[in-house]
Amino acid sequence: MLESEAVVPCCPPLTERTLTAAEAERTAAMFKALSDPVRLRLFSAVASAPGGEACVCDISDVGVSQPTVSHHLKKLKEAGLLASERRGTWVYYRVEPSVLAGMGRLLTGAAPA
Amino acid sequence: MLESEAVVPCCPPLTERTLTAAEAERTAAMFKALSDPVRLRLFSAVASAPGGEACVCDISDVGVSQPTVSHHLKKLKEAGLLASERRGTWVYYRVEPSVLAGMGRLLTGAAPA
Repeated sequence: MLESEAVVPCCPPLTERTLTAAEAERTAAMFKALSDPVRLRLFSAVASAPGGEACVCDISDVGVSQPTVSHHLKKLKEAGLLASERRGTWVYYRVEPSVLAGMGRLLTGAAPA
Repeated sequence: MLESEAVVPCCPPLTERTLTAAEAERTAAMFKALSDPVRLRLFSAVASAPGGEACVCDISDVGVSQPTVSHHLKKLKEAGLLASERRGTWVYYRVEPSVLAGMGRLLTGAAPA
């Protein structure tokens, strides 16, 4: 059972109209989660992991400690970009594809292929 | 004459492999520019403006002062997300479409439509 619900990005393409304050708050939080270089590398490590998921135990090549990895993965989950599932000792993370597609659409104005 | 050169995002889709530290630095800076709600609203105001461009004089509905608008538009330009052109008194800003498309591709792994 996934612990986080899928978060569907709220907003129209940025080229359509000025976002409302509420839309901008929500969307900016997702961009903020990806605005730290280490967090972005960890996100790409999860997104590109075999089977589309990874635990802290799988990620050792980004040059930061396991507690730091855990911290960043939690932040990404709080922003709705990752879902998590506990199995035994480890929490496994996977990317929310609908969220990425929604953020992509926001930027390009196009439906994802 | 546009004052900023088009910035082509550097990086493969996030689902392809772990970004290098250099790729992550560069990409995180673009996400960071969009991670402030006011800045994101201003970006959407420029992106959706008639003719695809706007000056500070055109933007009055976001509820912040003109100096604040100017400050944020400069930050967006420094991040490579907006290009600018001075005409008389005003600097006009427009979105760099190649940058948005590149960021969209980074997120979705798909070429924009």
